Amino acid sequence: MTESNFFTLIHKDPSSDARSGRLLTSRGAIDTPCFMPVGTQGSVKTLSPQELNESGAEIVLSNTYHLFLRPGLEIIEKAGGLHSFMSWDKPILTDSGGYQVFSLALLRKITDEGVHFQSHIDGMRHFLTPGDIVRIQQALGSDIIMPLDECVHYPCVRDQAELATERTISWAKKSRDAHSAIQQQGTCPQHLFGIVQGATYEDLRIRCCEELIEAGFDGYCIGGLSVGEPKNLMYNMAGICAAVLPERKPRYAMGVGLPDDIIEAVTLGIDMFDCVAPTRYGRNGTAFTHKGEVTVRNARYAKDYGPLDAACGCYTCNNFSRAYLRHLFNAEEILGLRLVSLHNIYFYLELMRAIRKAITDGVFLVFKKTFLGNYREKA
Amino acid sequence: MTESNFFTLIHKDPSSDARSGRLLTSRGAIDTPCFMPVGTQGSVKTLSPQELNESGAEIVLSNTYHLFLRPGLEIIEKAGGLHSFMSWDKPILTDSGGYQVFSLALLRKITDEGVHFQSHIDGMRHFLTPGDIVRIQQALGSDIIMPLDECVHYPCVRDQAELATERTISWAKKSRDAHSAIQQQGTCPQHLFGIVQGATYEDLRIRCCEELIEAGFDGYCIGGLSVGEPKNLMYNMAGICAAVLPERKPRYAMGVGLPDDIIEAVTLGIDMFDCVAPTRYGRNGTAFTHKGEVTVRNARYAKDYGPLDAACGCYTCNNFSRAYLRHLFNAEEILGLRLVSLHNIYFYLELMRAIRKAITDGVFLVFKKTFLGNYREKA
Repeated sequence: MTESNFFTLIHKDPSSDARSGRLLTSRGAIDTPCFMPVGTQGSVKTLSPQELNESGAEIVLSNTYHLFLRPGLEIIEKAGGLHSFMSWDKPILTDSGGYQVFSLALLRKITDEGVHFQSHIDGMRHFLTPGDIVRIQQALGSDIIMPLDECVHYPCVRDQAELATERTISWAKKSRDAHSAIQQQGTCPQHLFGIVQGATYEDLRIRCCEELIEAGFDGYCIGGLSVGEPKNLMYNMAGICAAVLPERKPRYAMGVGLPDDIIEAVTLGIDMFDCVAPTRYGRNGTAFTHKGEVTVRNARYAKDYGPLDAACGCYTCNNFSRAYLRHLFNAEEILGLRLVSLHNIYFYLELMRAIRKAITDGVFLVFKKTFLGNYREKA
Repeated sequence: MTESNFFTLIHKDPSSDARSGRLLTSRGAIDTPCFMPVGTQGSVKTLSPQELNESGAEIVLSNTYHLFLRPGLEIIEKAGGLHSFMSWDKPILTDSGGYQVFSLALLRKITDEGVHFQSHIDGMRHFLTPGDIVRIQQALGSDIIMPLDECVHYPCVRDQAELATERTISWAKKSRDAHSAIQQQGTCPQHLFGIVQGATYEDLRIRCCEELIEAGFDGYCIGGLSVGEPKNLMYNMAGICAAVLPERKPRYAMGVGLPDDIIEAVTLGIDMFDCVAPTRYGRNGTAFTHKGEVTVRNARYAKDYGPLDAACGCYTCNNFSRAYLRHLFNAEEILGLRLVSLHNIYFYLELMRAIRKAITDGVFLVFKKTFLGNYREKA
C-alpha cells in the first residue's frame, strides 16, 4: 500500500474550502469531488454496469451487511470477488454494514468486541467483530473499505453519543490492525478509511477526528450525517470535521446527499459522496434537473414533449419526452423506472464533473451561486 | 401503396413449406421469418429501444386497445405518432385490439357495426367500428395494421365460431374500405392485413381464407391460435391456412409462440410471429436457451458461474453468470428482470436469424432437427 500515492490534491479553490483531486486505486483513478452510485446488493438499482460506465461512474458503492447475508461470502468469493460477480471492473467502495446493523437488523446487541444481530432476511443470528468486517471486505475484494462503526439516531443524548464515539474509535483501531495484518500478506491493495462519529456534538466530532488521525487511515469518512438532522446542522458538522482532518487525505461524507447538499459540502472541503436518492427518486418518478425536481407523474406533463432536463445529455433526455415517461409510470412500465434512474445518475455525475471543472477554473463559488439559483427556483 | 413491392419471397425450402423473404416498409425492411417483440403499451417490457436495436429487432408490435385507452390518441398524435412517442424509428405493427376487447374489456357487446365495451382501466364506455380501428392505427402511424376481428375462446362450439368468422370477414371488408379511403388521401403508407378466424374448424378456416383473399389484403394473419388449444391442433390450423393463402403474401401467426412452436410454424410456411413469452418469462426469471428453459431462481444455479446460454452472444450472457442472475432475482433487483428479458429477446431474434440462414442454405430441416433435439432435451 503506497499510501502517499492514493490521494493527490490537485486544485484548491481560492475563495472556499472546495478542492479537487484524484484517488488512485489498483482498478483505476477517481476524480474528486466524486459521487458514488449505490449498489447495495451488488446492483445499482435498475441500471446495468454498461450504463454506469457510459454515465461516467468511476466507482460504485456496495454494502457489506447485505452481501454478507445474501448471497453470502462463499458465492461471491467463488465468483472471483465482487467485481467479477457484478461485472464491474472499476473501483468499488464497500461500507462496513454498521449503519445497516443499526437500521435493519433484528435484536442487535453491541459489546466492545463487536455486534450480535439477527438477519432481517431469515432471522439467522450472527456475531461480527471489527476484524471480521475487514476480512469480509477483503474477501469481497473492495478497493476502499470501511471499519465497523456505531451509528446513533438523531437526536441523540450526549451520554449515548459519547459511548458510541468511543466504541467507534476503539473499533477503528482494531480494524486498522486487522487491515495491516492482511495487507502485509500482500493480497490486493485495499484502502481503509476511518469513520468520524460524534452525533451533533462538536467536541465529540473533533476528538473523534483527532484520535482517528493519530491512528492513521487512508481517508476519513464523516458518518452519522443525513440521518434526519436539520441541514444547517449537517453542514456545520461536516465543516467542523473537514477543518480538522488532514488536507492530504480524502474526506467522504457518507450518505450525503441531495444535489444542493453535495454542493454545500464540497464548499466545506468534502471530496466523496454517496446517496441512494438518484435511484430511489428515479424509481418513484422524480427526476433531478437543473431547475429542481420534476415529478413525471404530474398531470401537467401529460402533453409536455420536452426532455426531463433540456440541459442534460443522457440517453433518457436525448430520446424521450416527459409525456412518454409519464405514460410509462402511469402504465407501470419498468422502462420508466430505468429511464428516470439513468437520468438521475447521469445528472449527479454530470454535476460532479461541473463542480470539478469549476474548481479547476477557479470559479467554484460563481458556479455554486448559478447552479443553486436555478436549482432552488424549481421547475 | 405499392403492394407488389411490400413482400418479396426469396427462398423456398425444398423439403418443407418453410420460406424466407423480406417485407419492405417506408421505415425499413424486415427479413422473414421474423419475430416481433411485443410492446403492448408502447414499451417492450423492461427494455430500451437501443437494446432492441442492438439485439437486431427490425419491427416491434404494439397494441391499439391499450394505447387508445392510455395514454390516449391525442397524446400520441401530438407527439408526432407512436414512433416518435416511444423513440422507435423502425417499423411498428399494431394489432386491432380485437383480442383485448374480448379478453380484458368489461361489459363488451358486439353488433355487426362494431364493439361496445368498457375500459378495464377506468370503466369508461366506448364504441368502435372496424373503420374506427383503422383510423386509430392511422393516427398512431403504424406501418402494418390489423382489422377488428372477433376472437373466440377454446374450445368454441361451431355455431359461435361460424358467427364470429362471418363477422370477422364482414369487418375485414369494412376495414379494407376504410383503409383504401385513407390511403387515397396520400398519408403515410400502411399495410393492412386480413385476419383468418374459424376456431378449430377446418372448413371455417378455409372459407375465411378464401373470402379474405377475394377481398385482397397486403398479408394474412392466422388469428385465434395459441389460446389454450393442444399444440397439434394449433399446428394443424396453421398448416391448413398456410396451404390456402397466396404464396406471394406474408403470413403471420398471431401470438405464436414458444421457440418450438415458431419452428414448427415456419415449417408450415408462416413468416411472422409475435409473443409475450420472452419478456414475460424473463420477468419471471425463466430464460430460453439452446438447451431448453432455465429457471434462474433454482437453487442448483446458486454457484453456477456459467452464462445462461453458452451459445449466446447477448450482453447478459457476455457479462453475467447464472449465480449473479439468481442473486438478483432473490434480492428482487430490477436488473435481473432486465437481463433475462434482454437475453430472451436476443435468443428469439437469434433463433430467427438462424432459421433464415438455414432456409437460405437449404438445410432447414436439418437445422430444425438439431435445434429441437437440443431444446427439448432440457438444460
